[in-house]
Amino acid sequence: MIRVTCWNEYYKERMDETCKKAYPNGIHEAIKEVLSTDEHIICRTATPDEPECGLTQEALDATDVLIWWGHINHHLVPDEVAARVVHRVLNGMGFIALHSGHMSKPFMKLMGTSCDLRWRESEDHERLWCVNPGHPICAGLPPYFEIPKEETYGEFFDIPKPDEVVFLGWFSGGEVFRSGCCFTRGAGRIFYFQPGHESNPVYKQKEVGQVIRNAVHWAAPAFTHTAVFGEFASLEKK
Amino acid sequence: MIRVTCWNEYYKERMDETCKKAYPNGIHEAIKEVLSTDEHIICRTATPDEPECGLTQEALDATDVLIWWGHINHHLVPDEVAARVVHRVLNGMGFIALHSGHMSKPFMKLMGTSCDLRWRESEDHERLWCVNPGHPICAGLPPYFEIPKEETYGEFFDIPKPDEVVFLGWFSGGEVFRSGCCFTRGAGRIFYFQPGHESNPVYKQKEVGQVIRNAVHWAAPAFTHTAVFGEFASLEKK
Amino acid sequence: MIRVTCWNEYYKERMDETCKKAYPNGIHEAIKEVLSTDEHIICRTATPDEPECGLTQEALDATDVLIWWGHINHHLVPDEVAARVVHRVLNGMGFIALHSGHMSKPFMKLMGTSCDLRWRESEDHERLWCVNPGHPICAGLPPYFEIPKEETYGEFFDIPKPDEVVFLGWFSGGEVFRSGCCFTRGAGRIFYFQPGHESNPVYKQKEVGQVIRNAVHWAAPAFTHTAVFGEFASLEKK
Amino acid sequence: MIRVTCWNEYYKERMDETCKKAYPNGIHEAIKEVLSTDEHIICRTATPDEPECGLTQEALDATDVLIWWGHINHHLVPDEVAARVVHRVLNGMGFIALHSGHMSKPFMKLMGTSCDLRWRESEDHERLWCVNPGHPICAGLPPYFEIPKEETYGEFFDIPKPDEVVFLGWFSGGEVFRSGCCFTRGAGRIFYFQPGHESNPVYKQKEVGQVIRNAVHWAAPAFTHTAVFGEFASLEKK
Repeated sequence: MIRVTCWNEYYKERMDETCKKAYPNGIHEAIKEVLSTDEHIICRTATPDEPECGLTQEALDATDVLIWWGHINHHLVPDEVAARVVHRVLNGMGFIALHSGHMSKPFMKLMGTSCDLRWRESEDHERLWCVNPGHPICAGLPPYFEIPKEETYGEFFDIPKPDEVVFLGWFSGGEVFRSGCCFTRGAGRIFYFQPGHESNPVYKQKEVGQVIRNAVHWAAPAFTHTAVFGEFASLEKK
Repeated sequence: MIRVTCWNEYYKERMDETCKKAYPNGIHEAIKEVLSTDEHIICRTATPDEPECGLTQEALDATDVLIWWGHINHHLVPDEVAARVVHRVLNGMGFIALHSGHMSKPFMKLMGTSCDLRWRESEDHERLWCVNPGHPICAGLPPYFEIPKEETYGEFFDIPKPDEVVFLGWFSGGEVFRSGCCFTRGAGRIFYFQPGHESNPVYKQKEVGQVIRNAVHWAAPAFTHTAVFGEFASLEKK
Repeated sequence: MIRVTCWNEYYKERMDETCKKAYPNGIHEAIKEVLSTDEHIICRTATPDEPECGLTQEALDATDVLIWWGHINHHLVPDEVAARVVHRVLNGMGFIALHSGHMSKPFMKLMGTSCDLRWRESEDHERLWCVNPGHPICAGLPPYFEIPKEETYGEFFDIPKPDEVVFLGWFSGGEVFRSGCCFTRGAGRIFYFQPGHESNPVYKQKEVGQVIRNAVHWAAPAFTHTAVFGEFASLEKK
Repeated sequence: MIRVTCWNEYYKERMDETCKKAYPNGIHEAIKEVLSTDEHIICRTATPDEPECGLTQEALDATDVLIWWGHINHHLVPDEVAARVVHRVLNGMGFIALHSGHMSKPFMKLMGTSCDLRWRESEDHERLWCVNPGHPICAGLPPYFEIPKEETYGEFFDIPKPDEVVFLGWFSGGEVFRSGCCFTRGAGRIFYFQPGHESNPVYKQKEVGQVIRNAVHWAAPAFTHTAVFGEFASLEKK
């Protein structure tokens, strides 16, 4: 059983009519529902409404994969919570940063770069091409799929070279984007997935749900063993 | 259920007393036994004694992961059999090349380089360090493990840059080696693992067995979907 | 001084009026002219009109970087010439495969995959985005540049994961493509660059010329030393 | 002309007799001397004795490649100086972190991981193997070279997967280490090089000097163009 925590800043879905209509119960609940079809996944949600953003040490210790959606309130996540997340990732917790999560504190710290990119709110349509057909995150997906309306993200996306790029996004306005990127940091596996502007119910789309379920399986820690990273450091020096 | 075929040239275990003693029934049977402890794996063996080396199209179509041990008889594998293996890998079959399999026809074709390396028959002891602790192939393993007597392989190993290096080998005589290397080619996943000289029963060692079982799971095709590589090419052009 | 050989199958420019108009003296002469503005580069050309395709051992030994344009006559290059090219690349010669050169014998052997891709003759316009702004092949170029009319190439492009992707191509018809890819094989550096359909004078475009000159500098062997790959293999075993 | 700043914490060479003997004028002066043999490099030094550690904005703006040696006083570098260095790297300045610089503030921020490793002060001898013979940082070097006495560093080294590993270190006590690692972050190129414990005059060794000169050339920004990273972000959105 893979224990997922889906974190959402849960702001615009309460403030903005368009977003509220797209996600009446918040993006986190929509993603939780998407994961509920997979019998190997159990999902709880967390938002800034809870103490310590719902990301206490206990909560993180009981999380195999953390999904993160944040946008305009990144600064409201306390530095110590972000540091706690980063530490758990380095020790093996999976981390899936969605859409505007490229500017979240944990993702930026893990990348070490500006994580900046081009963007415009355009309602372009996007086509996502699978460029790694044997990768587990592409399992069950066609060679490409489309998102009817999406915020445009464009290169140069200032991230370290991903370990693997699994999707490239094509936007009708003329941009391209590395839309699905895998990274390893310490013992933890990180997946960045670009789609999911809050104004359109992108996470309810079939293919997007498949990607997220696949990514949870990919990012879940493989080990139940003595070699977790935290123990590496504490081994006596020879 | 992951369907494994374990191929072995099965020569020195019949010709040489030392090898016969290490592997009375051949290396292929020793590896089959190692895999038998995993309930998700079913393994058949194949050798050059069978027609078409036991690697007919039907056999390969029914194989999820092909394990390959060969050494001095690489040239006896017909080119069409090697090409058939390569084609299946590009279409998603996993491929695990062991030890001297670095010079086998399928591996060399898939790499595109000379695959040459330094070596000496030395009975050095080797220490394998895990350099990617979150990788599934390292699951259940300690930070390093040792092989008491092994043929020495040394850099420069003329392979393309691996997608991931999971083990680095240290040899008592002064060499280092990229001993566990992951590659993707087409939709197929390839793992090269250096240990396993035929004179010592290395494949009966506990940690080595764990690596091979892990590698089988990692290399098994993830998809049950329409996006297999062979279909990509045949899609009508837009 | 970097010694370049620019090889061209030189067929359609003699057979087809459109191509003849785009390149009256052949693509090879157009590229030679593009390189002539760089005082550190000296370029000769070679075509199948010459014995051994103009790629004798002597010619290759005197070549630091080989540029390759071929399309419909790949099969006319003798296997021994292709093998000679591959051997020189592994020993340090740079290799730049242009456009339909993805299906040339030397490139395919060096990659080890099918090198297949989607394509259509569409006269789409293409926009090339730089996704690695600090890479020497991007030097002097803007964040993106456009090619007014180009044959469409699309993913999935069946190549091994490149060491570095420096350009992503966006096509007006809906495709994306890894249009500038770097590889290392043995001691040799390989650059694949997608633009350059024979019907339009793409190689006369300013930015394209800049890319090719930059790529020549990047691919030129760095060493004047004892560590060339060929000598690695011949060193006595310790 | 490549403008190098060589930064050194310059502490133990003033406090400890062994280090003072190895480097009477400090490690920075020894490295400056090593670079003086290259007519394309001009080097200044900087230490914490100067205001803002000698790393003012003006100083960094006039630096193409920053070399960093620090060990026990990483915490004395102000956060704003470290942030300034990181920003310059992302905008194209090369950065070479030596030895214990793996724990320096700029390197750790750029990596995003713990950068932890195994170590012991052992006076092991180390053998560095070139595993990328065509890489410019290996130019002029033999297949391997040795350092008679060096502090032992061992895996697991908690860094992101390097873009390229150019040296692997073998230690007589049984460890291996990724001793020469290349990274790109933003438009900047980063090289980590493991040798150089302060107790032995490692930087005066011929091969080590060659590596550092090669690394300066590799890390120097290639561009003199409009595509520097800082300008990417400020381009008007389409």
